[in-house]
Parts: sequence; C-alpha cells; structure tokens
Amino acid sequence: MKIAPPDPGLLSLNTATVREKWSLREAIEGCARHGIRGISPWRDKLAALGVKEAAGLMRDNGLTVTGLCRGGMFPAADRKGRQAAIDDNLRAIDDAAVLGARCLVLVAGGLPQGSTDLKGAREMVRDGIGEVLDRARAAGVPLAIEPLHPMYCADRACVNTLAHALDLCDELDTGKGGALGVAVDVYHLWWDPALNAQIERAGDKRLLAFHICDWLVPTTDLLTDRGMMGDGVIDLPLIRSWMEAAGYRGFHEVEIFSARNWWKREPDDVLSVARRRHQERC
Amino acid sequence: MKIAPPDPGLLSLNTATVREKWSLREAIEGCARHGIRGISPWRDKLAALGVKEAAGLMRDNGLTVTGLCRGGMFPAADRKGRQAAIDDNLRAIDDAAVLGARCLVLVAGGLPQGSTDLKGAREMVRDGIGEVLDRARAAGVPLAIEPLHPMYCADRACVNTLAHALDLCDELDTGKGGALGVAVDVYHLWWDPALNAQIERAGDKRLLAFHICDWLVPTTDLLTDRGMMGDGVIDLPLIRSWMEAAGYRGFHEVEIFSARNWWKREPDDVLSVARRRHQERC
Repeated sequence: MKIAPPDPGLLSLNTATVREKWSLREAIEGCARHGIRGISPWRDKLAALGVKEAAGLMRDNGLTVTGLCRGGMFPAADRKGRQAAIDDNLRAIDDAAVLGARCLVLVAGGLPQGSTDLKGAREMVRDGIGEVLDRARAAGVPLAIEPLHPMYCADRACVNTLAHALDLCDELDTGKGGALGVAVDVYHLWWDPALNAQIERAGDKRLLAFHICDWLVPTTDLLTDRGMMGDGVIDLPLIRSWMEAAGYRGFHEVEIFSARNWWKREPDDVLSVARRRHQERC
Repeated sequence: MKIAPPDPGLLSLNTATVREKWSLREAIEGCARHGIRGISPWRDKLAALGVKEAAGLMRDNGLTVTGLCRGGMFPAADRKGRQAAIDDNLRAIDDAAVLGARCLVLVAGGLPQGSTDLKGAREMVRDGIGEVLDRARAAGVPLAIEPLHPMYCADRACVNTLAHALDLCDELDTGKGGALGVAVDVYHLWWDPALNAQIERAGDKRLLAFHICDWLVPTTDLLTDRGMMGDGVIDLPLIRSWMEAAGYRGFHEVEIFSARNWWKREPDDVLSVARRRHQERC
C-alpha cells in the first residue's frame, strides 16, 4: 500500500530529541527557524526557562504545544510517596494549562522499590490518575496515558499496551468526554499485534498524541538508542494510516533518545533530517 | 498469598545457563551431581557431543529432556531461505525425537533483513510451523512456540505474547491433540496483564514448558543480562501458581543468559544457587 506523505505542518519536536545541546529557548527558536510548528517540552527545561516565559515564547513563535512531558510516576512504597506523586501531577497540570498544551503525557511509573507486586502497582496508577483527573478536566488539560514498551515495565511504566491504557480510560472516564486518552508512541507499541485494533478502539476522542522515531536493529541500550524515522524497522506510514483511519488529525511528534548518535549532533542538523524523514519515511 | 515451595525434583537446567564454561557432557554430569533431574540442551552443543551419545548419557544419568533449544527462525527474505529454515526444523525434530525431548522449543524469528513487514513475517512463522507440524506429530515431538519479549520482535521473534502464540496453536492444531503448544518463559511474559488469563486459556494440553529466571533492575543489556530467580522483580511463585492452576505439572527450567555475572561463575556454584533459589524464591 502506497501512502501519501504527511502534511509537513504536522511535525512537532519533542525537545528530548535535542536535550543534550539545546535549552528550551533554543529549541523554540530552532523550531521557528526550521518551520516546525509543534513542540513538546519536558518539565526540567520548562522550569529552567520559566513556565510563563516559555508560554509567551512559544506563542510568539506560533508553536502549538503538542504535549507536556511528563506527569505520572504514581506508584510508591508508601502513602507519602503516592501523595507526593499526585501533588507533582497537579503542578504539571497547572503548567500544561499555562502552556495551553494539547495534553499532559502520563508515564505510569513502575514497581515501587523492592516490590514485585505488579498488580498493586497498576492499581496505584489507576488510583493516581483518578485523583488528578478532575483537576485536569477543570483546567482543560487532557491527560494522555502513554503505554511504554514492556522493557520499561519494572522501572518506568507498568502500563505497556494500548489495550491496558484504554481499559484505564474506560474505567476512569466513562463519558469519553475527552479529559483522558492515550499517547501512541510507535517505539513502544509497534510490535503489538493488537495495535491497529486498539487504535481503532481509541478513536479520535482518545487519541491525544502520536510520537514517532524508529526501532534500530541492533538496539544497544534499553533507554537511549532510539532511531531516526527511516533508520529502523517500524512501518511508520502504516501506523500513521491507522491513526488517521481512526480519526486522528493531530501532530506527529518526533521524540528520539539517542546517546550514541542524534544527541551528539548539531541540533540544527537533527531538525533538518527529521523534517526530511518526516516527509520521506513517515 | 503464601505459596508452598515447588517440588525440587521439578528443576531442570537449560544449558544456556552454563554455556560459557561447560560442554554438554559436563552439563549432564553437573546435573547428576546436583540432583537436577531435567535438562534442556542447545543444538550447537548437542551437535558437538553427538545426538546419540547425548541421548545415552542423559538416559544413563536419569535426566528428563525438558526441551530442545531450538527450532523456529522461519521468516526469510526469499523462498530458498524459508525452505532452509523448514529443513533445519525438520532436522531439529528428528534430534528431539532421538533425545525423547518433551518438546522442541520454537523461537519464531524476526523480520527478514531490510524488511518492515511485520504482518508478513508473522505469516511466514505461521506457514513455517504449518509445514513442519506433521513431521513433529509423527515423531512424537510436541512443538512449543515460545513467545519472546517484545524487545526481540525485530531480530529474534515476532511472536511476543502468549495470546499470539495460542492463536497460532488454535489455527494450526484445531484438535488440540498435543502436537503444538507453548513455552512460558517468565522473562518474556511477566509484564503482560493478560498472562494469567492466557495461561488459563492454554490449559495443560498447550503448556509444554515453563522457563524461569528473573528480570533485573536495571537491565543493562537486551540479550545477556537476565537474573537468577530472586534477584529481580518477577513474582515467580505467583506465575508458577497460575501454571499449576491451569494444570501444568512439568519441569521448571532455569535459563539465564548473563554475560556479566552467572556465565562468569563456576557452573557448580551456579547450579547450587539455582537449586536453592528454586526452593526459596520460586
């Protein structure tokens, strides 16, 4: 199946892609320079720049904030830790509201230190999202549960399939009012035989973000060896076609953790390549 | 839930655990020395010793061959490659028959070189198993599809969930005659929210092998950083209880790929620790 290239105006930069060399201000200016119209900042760099300052700069440069990375990380060994996570998520919701972000990305969190109780951790994730959902709804900030690859189940996110993320959505947001949905990241989900069916199940109401990069062969590190679109084995046009068939019309956010390659390069070069690959390989 | 320790007589050694220091003969003798009553050899070392010689040694030492590792690797870029894979699987079935192995473990294989056609690769796996199933049935060698962790989808196995493996079983072996089933390896499947349900679905007819080790935090290598039971985050007694509830009465095969730790140790020490941990942490 031949699939038409995507609208270049839908490319967004997740700033993790250039995090080693650029501040958030530089990333914003870089996007403007390269005609990239979406941006998704991380909270550490957002705090360094200041939320209001960042919001103004993004607005002035015509950028859509396609997401704020990240909330979540709900499981903790004790009540105090769980409350701290909830408080942190409430602050993230407020920041996302100031930015006018299309969503706050939630990375669930893994097992508490020393625990093997996966079911319990998953319940903490459900309960944590439940605790912050009203605030998100009131603030007009949709929460996007991002299932992470199963190799992160222990230490980063115990929500590892789109089906699981959507089960949480169905349980917590029965009205499908748009306050709770999912972020579909090809890196985490490309292998799942149920991916197309679950994207369909999500539908446009629940599909809040679409993250792109590629899976390299071989992959030499579990965390920081993602590939540029086209350098790996993911059929990106196919997955995009599933997203579009389900009604998704949002941005395509390039997010590449790459210690051995892209993080070392000049960010202007990275953005040039990303723009081209978005057209040619996505 | 407190779960009683397993029968120590059910421990089996997958010889990959000691592959850096021991030949197959040494592994057989090691099992005998440590009172381990099951063994699962790999084909490279089996060939080095000779299949008949190995079969005799195992029998003389009272060992049950809980599996032969491995067949599979069906996808290939062209017809010739696919036929070569099938021929290799037929040879593996013959070897497994000589050994009286309880199953031939099938690792599906990943994407052919340069391919991004995951659906196509999965069809090649289905067709490949279909091609060899009659021979396996005739030889009395059950084929055990082993779903591998999704991080191996590209280059080792594009069957990554128990659900997918069981779908293949249902499609190819409609009569549930016992010729086709699954190998449940905790390392590959522990993260799956559907694991218990799929183990139940498999039932004793389809549950041909149970492989144990542990998931380390952090995991520093995708291939060779598995942990000894009890050193990681997998709730092994819980998963064993699911296997038993589904009717599984077979061996518990310890299989640890560990370049930085267990492969460097004296295999006799590894076997001692494995025996103890099997009792205390499984």
